[in-house]
Amino acid sequence: MKPTFLLAALGCGLCFGQAADDCKPSTLNIPGAQYPCVYPDNRVAFRLAAPDAQKVQVRLGGAHDMTRGADGMWSVTIPPQVVGFHYYTLVVDGVTIADPATRTFFGSGWDNSGIEIPEQGVDYYSARDVPHGDVRQRWYFSKVTGKWRRCYVYTPPDYDSNVKARYPVLYLLHGWGENEQGWHIQGHVDFILDNLIAAKKARPMLIVMDNLNAVKPGEDASLFAARGVVAQARPPQAAPGGRGAAPAGRGGGFGPNFGATFTEMMLTDLIPMIERTYRVLPGRENRAMAGLSMGGMQTFTTALANLDKFAYIGGFSGSSGGRGGFDPKTSSNGVFADAAAFNKKVKVLFLGIGSVEGPGTKTFSEALTQAGIHNVYFESPGTAHEWLTWRRCLNDFAPRLFQ
Amino acid sequence: MKPTFLLAALGCGLCFGQAADDCKPSTLNIPGAQYPCVYPDNRVAFRLAAPDAQKVQVRLGGAHDMTRGADGMWSVTIPPQVVGFHYYTLVVDGVTIADPATRTFFGSGWDNSGIEIPEQGVDYYSARDVPHGDVRQRWYFSKVTGKWRRCYVYTPPDYDSNVKARYPVLYLLHGWGENEQGWHIQGHVDFILDNLIAAKKARPMLIVMDNLNAVKPGEDASLFAARGVVAQARPPQAAPGGRGAAPAGRGGGFGPNFGATFTEMMLTDLIPMIERTYRVLPGRENRAMAGLSMGGMQTFTTALANLDKFAYIGGFSGSSGGRGGFDPKTSSNGVFADAAAFNKKVKVLFLGIGSVEGPGTKTFSEALTQAGIHNVYFESPGTAHEWLTWRRCLNDFAPRLFQ
Repeated sequence: MKPTFLLAALGCGLCFGQAADDCKPSTLNIPGAQYPCVYPDNRVAFRLAAPDAQKVQVRLGGAHDMTRGADGMWSVTIPPQVVGFHYYTLVVDGVTIADPATRTFFGSGWDNSGIEIPEQGVDYYSARDVPHGDVRQRWYFSKVTGKWRRCYVYTPPDYDSNVKARYPVLYLLHGWGENEQGWHIQGHVDFILDNLIAAKKARPMLIVMDNLNAVKPGEDASLFAARGVVAQARPPQAAPGGRGAAPAGRGGGFGPNFGATFTEMMLTDLIPMIERTYRVLPGRENRAMAGLSMGGMQTFTTALANLDKFAYIGGFSGSSGGRGGFDPKTSSNGVFADAAAFNKKVKVLFLGIGSVEGPGTKTFSEALTQAGIHNVYFESPGTAHEWLTWRRCLNDFAPRLFQ
Repeated sequence: MKPTFLLAALGCGLCFGQAADDCKPSTLNIPGAQYPCVYPDNRVAFRLAAPDAQKVQVRLGGAHDMTRGADGMWSVTIPPQVVGFHYYTLVVDGVTIADPATRTFFGSGWDNSGIEIPEQGVDYYSARDVPHGDVRQRWYFSKVTGKWRRCYVYTPPDYDSNVKARYPVLYLLHGWGENEQGWHIQGHVDFILDNLIAAKKARPMLIVMDNLNAVKPGEDASLFAARGVVAQARPPQAAPGGRGAAPAGRGGGFGPNFGATFTEMMLTDLIPMIERTYRVLPGRENRAMAGLSMGGMQTFTTALANLDKFAYIGGFSGSSGGRGGFDPKTSSNGVFADAAAFNKKVKVLFLGIGSVEGPGTKTFSEALTQAGIHNVYFESPGTAHEWLTWRRCLNDFAPRLFQ
């Protein structure tokens, strides 16, 4: 038993005051909040004043019961966490909530809490004293969905001063339950690119970050909804199996036409708007597409079916070869069948994964190699299906683009 | 008693299913959430599944007890609300939380819930089919505070195409407990300006939105912290009166030097960075400053002491003449003492307020007029100390700038 656990078990009245000395407030806390805080060994302490509650838990990885103090303050210190960004929630008397003491982050379909476990000695996703680009919020109307949409566009540091220059573009997608803000808020796409460009490791480029949620009028959007949390505010007649269940097929669920509406929207509305609005280089060799998790699946769906439009393709924890296993002759409508032709067209095919996520992506990469398809396999050591995996993927992928 | 209240009182098992037919989900809900929803008469229905909770309330205006149904679903329908954006919270067994069913909005120092009551027939703060500008996230290092800071910059629709043009700049501040995102997320600054510029009612301009929270190392930042919510995660030894209490004086509290560090930061770091980074017109006649609530107080503090730098000044629910009443000879270090000189320098002095906020600002405007100081008094009908007041203020103020 570690010393702090021992003190807690002894009911030491002062142990939180003492412990807090080397427990640093999470950088994602709201101003003034001392908790959650992170110890030097990456244990995390949480607190919540809830004098009238019967049961309070932290859910981060697993569920951790908090303990009620005599003053109505609930607390728990959880074992060392992996470095990087983690979503987490509190559960108060059965209600899943965001911790009021942290900023919220859109993931799993709602605004839940986040914590950042600092990675010592690593600053590629931090603000450094280098020239900085902008991340621009851009609204546009989609004819395909019939709605206004919001995307974000990273423009590199020299975009405004180098007014005759045109730039290649990476279209970069978030994962299930996240949105178009994920890459610059949770992912620090801007700092990663600022730092790579300053070190001359990556070419200045635009990065366009849109929302995977694209449905036509009448299509089912429930794929994008928060499962458990929405149920908290759902009338009883719409329980799972009712309107909450995502049907297979176009626009809904992971059926055979998964992502077809997004692809149509992207080709019809998004890319033309970007090319009208910003100074971008034309043509497939100046266009890349990548995404994480569901955004990686979407990338494979969209880009492999449109190789006349994309020369660089990345899946971050995003693809292990499709349903039913990988067959070079038939998978993705046979795009891999002629390896030489594929290799000539696709300058980089990148497959990234966290080492804790299982062997599927590595197996897929090896099967591609076996079939003669050039590809890059990148493994993030010690990380799971989380943002640090994807920051590392981007940091490895971006220097390979447009060379 | 209104019909819906009657049905609820009768315990009608189906009444929520029926009522929901004309109750439209709030536009700020997370994807898939049916509640909260707004009735045509602006009553609002809330729901939360909390089978194990003992007491659940909605706090919007006042506190509204929710009622537990047999299925553990708590619900309440509250009386008609004023149009516009309102922050609100839920209280579950004494814990103040954001409603998991809505997007969150940074206000009162934390990410709480928001609801938008639609204003029929009004679209000046909506996305319309007009050219749109960008809202750019910009990081910069402040020598005054020793920290990286984030601001947002609205650039008008023609900024990227009209590459030789230079633009005037409005520096626009949020209120207490909010941050640099407030004006474009809660305030829709971008749509308001896009629409005004398209109608040729306002000149194309940049709008710079920074964070009021500016302290030097060692200064107390607790003024900017969430009072009640932070207390939920505060160790007992730091109760109010301890480290949570804001001292008067420089950088902390509303003392005589309120906002001095922000002013220094703005003049030393922010304005030079903006003028280096963007194509802006130089000089005081191309520079405006405005803010809401505490940001209005900051605007008066900063701009009235630096009339060599600002020719347009706006306070939205922000000033009623300072402590101890208004004296034209001595208030604001005597800047109003020579009315003719003041009127020559300050092209627009704008005082806006919601009609429900009380007479202080109108009294101040009249006292200024009495003292010979030209000023514009704007009153938003029927609104309180809330975002619709400030959207209306901006919509009236922006056309007066740089003419």
